[in-house]
Amino acid sequence: MKAKLIVTPKKAVLDPQGKTVQNALEHMGYAAVTGVHVGKYIEIDLAAGTDRVAARKALDEAAHKFLSNPVIEDYQLEIVD
Amino acid sequence: MKAKLIVTPKKAVLDPQGKTVQNALEHMGYAAVTGVHVGKYIEIDLAAGTDRVAARKALDEAAHKFLSNPVIEDYQLEIVD
Repeated sequence: MKAKLIVTPKKAVLDPQGKTVQNALEHMGYAAVTGVHVGKYIEIDLAAGTDRVAARKALDEAAHKFLSNPVIEDYQLEIVD
Repeated sequence: MKAKLIVTPKKAVLDPQGKTVQNALEHMGYAAVTGVHVGKYIEIDLAAGTDRVAARKALDEAAHKFLSNPVIEDYQLEIVD
């Protein structure tokens, strides 16, 4: 079992890394790009037989407490087999 | 239309950031964690009406050329509506 966590800057927060990638893409001729957001991806391997509901609860707490900064970042947590 | 690009270090490559997050999780009592991989997440907004096949081809090339380092990183590209 795995947990996939995506942490992205909130829309209202300046994202200079995203802006830089967007400029680079435009500069290289990718004209259809209208915006880029750069975030973190964290994949967490969980021991076989871990309870899915308990794992989600624990990782949700971990994501909120120290894997993301809730003031400026949003996160999405997904548990997959 | 959006493209979601996930760039992760290859399994054979040392991932000190992942190891650090794993240690932190273990230290805080999340016992079921057996491994952590930390990567980048890049969300690219595309203009409405962009051709999906052409966009995938262009972004695949961009991901290979300069959004990831193919020697030490793998990437997954997904186009969603």
